[in-house]
Amino acid sequence: MHIYKANILFTKVKDKFDIIPNGYIAVENGKVVGVYERLPESLCGAPITDFGDKLLIPAMNDMHVHAPQYRNQGIAMDLELLPWLDNYTFPEESKYADTAYAKRMYKLFVRDLWRNGTMRTVAFATIHRESTRLLMQLFQKAGMGAFVGKVDMDRNCPPTLTQTVADAVSDNEQLIAEFDKEDALVRPIITPRFIPSCTPEMLRACGELAKKHNLPVQSHLSENRGEIAWVKDLEPESSSYGDAYFRYGLFGQTPTIMAHCVWTEGEELELMRRQRVMVAHCPTSNLNLSSGMASVRTFLQAGVPVGLGSDISGGHQLSIFKMMVYAIEVSKMQYCRDKSKAFLTLSEAFWIATKSAGSFFGKVGSFENDYEFDALVIDDSELNHDNYSLQHRLERFIYIGDDRHIVHRFCRGKEITLSDF
Amino acid sequence: MHIYKANILFTKVKDKFDIIPNGYIAVENGKVVGVYERLPESLCGAPITDFGDKLLIPAMNDMHVHAPQYRNQGIAMDLELLPWLDNYTFPEESKYADTAYAKRMYKLFVRDLWRNGTMRTVAFATIHRESTRLLMQLFQKAGMGAFVGKVDMDRNCPPTLTQTVADAVSDNEQLIAEFDKEDALVRPIITPRFIPSCTPEMLRACGELAKKHNLPVQSHLSENRGEIAWVKDLEPESSSYGDAYFRYGLFGQTPTIMAHCVWTEGEELELMRRQRVMVAHCPTSNLNLSSGMASVRTFLQAGVPVGLGSDISGGHQLSIFKMMVYAIEVSKMQYCRDKSKAFLTLSEAFWIATKSAGSFFGKVGSFENDYEFDALVIDDSELNHDNYSLQHRLERFIYIGDDRHIVHRFCRGKEITLSDF
Repeated sequence: MHIYKANILFTKVKDKFDIIPNGYIAVENGKVVGVYERLPESLCGAPITDFGDKLLIPAMNDMHVHAPQYRNQGIAMDLELLPWLDNYTFPEESKYADTAYAKRMYKLFVRDLWRNGTMRTVAFATIHRESTRLLMQLFQKAGMGAFVGKVDMDRNCPPTLTQTVADAVSDNEQLIAEFDKEDALVRPIITPRFIPSCTPEMLRACGELAKKHNLPVQSHLSENRGEIAWVKDLEPESSSYGDAYFRYGLFGQTPTIMAHCVWTEGEELELMRRQRVMVAHCPTSNLNLSSGMASVRTFLQAGVPVGLGSDISGGHQLSIFKMMVYAIEVSKMQYCRDKSKAFLTLSEAFWIATKSAGSFFGKVGSFENDYEFDALVIDDSELNHDNYSLQHRLERFIYIGDDRHIVHRFCRGKEITLSDF
Repeated sequence: MHIYKANILFTKVKDKFDIIPNGYIAVENGKVVGVYERLPESLCGAPITDFGDKLLIPAMNDMHVHAPQYRNQGIAMDLELLPWLDNYTFPEESKYADTAYAKRMYKLFVRDLWRNGTMRTVAFATIHRESTRLLMQLFQKAGMGAFVGKVDMDRNCPPTLTQTVADAVSDNEQLIAEFDKEDALVRPIITPRFIPSCTPEMLRACGELAKKHNLPVQSHLSENRGEIAWVKDLEPESSSYGDAYFRYGLFGQTPTIMAHCVWTEGEELELMRRQRVMVAHCPTSNLNLSSGMASVRTFLQAGVPVGLGSDISGGHQLSIFKMMVYAIEVSKMQYCRDKSKAFLTLSEAFWIATKSAGSFFGKVGSFENDYEFDALVIDDSELNHDNYSLQHRLERFIYIGDDRHIVHRFCRGKEITLSDF
């Protein structure tokens, strides 16, 4: 049992912050066992860490990121999707056949997630088993949670990034045998890249792997209009892009997260709701790649779960705080066009990034009892130059703060310092 | 004469970067007198500062910012324009009747501009003469360039922010007498807040002041649809919002900059072109306040000059580098809807923020001969972990860098350190 004292802010529900000035959180075995305005007598003997006037908030979850595109973060933004993939993304991912290169870059990547306060990540790796293993080992060593997907793809991609279905299945099986442990912080996730880059055989094999091992699934969905038309062409029997995944057992038969969903509506939206498929909303990527603007309000209204993703390197920012800002801004542009779609409030964006996204990992993203203690301590003294309210202090940090203001990071109750990383 | 050596990047024209690896810039009397790949023999005796592998670029210009809204930066983003003005903006501006408060906050503000690499600013102050003087003195002390406007307003605003026309004119005259000097770095600019908050008498007086002293003008234009309808109501004889300013001598009769212009089109656009009225494009503010998305491509195609503005506190970020990113992203959303409006490239956004914006201050924003040497030295070694090209290094800094990477700042040839600020 350990007690942490600070100004506590979190979101049990989307519509408001729970705010406890100078409050206490009791943590035992990595989990929250109580949040208090005043410390109960029974806990007065427990060791306390007092963070003074700092803010204590749930840690961030990045629900969609391409770890091997880390090198390309913030470059080549003048290109559209296809030349960007051909000239930057695929050549870069091909380099991950080299485990030495992978080790160097993945280490920078994991450190940067840490720096930005992201304690749980849903990541694409590449098709390469050994590099994927390295990334998983790095997350383990850091003590940070992650679902890591060895990517499966076998059409419409360069030969260096193509595998046979048999090899893909065998590589996945090896990683699953090694990492798929009850309660593990770092776990495999079945990762067909997206329908255009997977043959029906590959998609079928992915669905079977997910079912056989009861593993979650991640992929891309309805990111841009050209892609949707392409999928319609490739999968003419499916009634929607989402339905195509569904037919292969890749759409909610096990927990599923789909990046983007910019153009999802109608039947596909209803299928997501029914199948509890989570959207990884990636607003900066959608802007940078001219994909369009997804309507998070529509997802919320439809009861479709949502989290936020950095989508490096379509997105350029790893900070999930900045994804909240972009998610709000994009929602305001949609509100401009359609006043029935109220823009996202700060508490909604925060709830999406923490408790809503965190549900993909179990009880993560809130400070309610029995939630894993994933937390950040924010020292905003430099930003708090005129005695703002606690909610305004959090808002200011989200809008104008950065990694300099994150002074402690916890995952599953353990402080993560990367001191021997 | 002094020589600076570094990797030099700037934009003579919007369509490409001029890049000189390990190049030299010769500066004399605050002005660029030559840029060289190899140092000419005649200059070999001159003192050199060698910045090694760092990047040397023109400094930033913020073309629209409300200095007294600095305290509200990054808060109250859940509100729409009117409650935001009533509950946050006007009460905050009213505090600037107190010069002690003004001094404390303006000092933080100027320091933060500096931190973000902004060496020239076009700022709104408040209606208060003494606080406005303080802000001008702080810019002078810093050695940074600015047009600072004492704000004029006399209707549709709280009594604490209302002045008589006579008082406004007298206050302006005093500031003009004190600060309007040939070649001064810090100068007055005539600043009617916007048409709804100025009576015809106030607008007329502003136009007369501008004409009498040949001073530039700044205001707001066509920010959102409700405002445009309001102006139509208030100025029924004008054919457009811009034309209303024009009739008062406030639209290009002297150099003029208008913030936002989100909904400017047709006749108003043509009037801007003819009158050489510059747009201060403020993309984050337009997103945060749900104003809409201005089309910079339309301005460029029409030949209307453009710069970028942070518009604190409608905008939340002081960094003009981040304004470039947002300007590009907003242009991509418009490109999504209308493929005839090509999105902004990086060099275009950079040119807009430097040479195009800088033209409002004279020869500022480029490293061509006779330009004032306003420059930043960027140490991106932390970001350059895999030997990127110089253009990619600049792009990465713009997208993912911050004030930590700005290690030297020059305005008019002088290094600005704020060491005794």
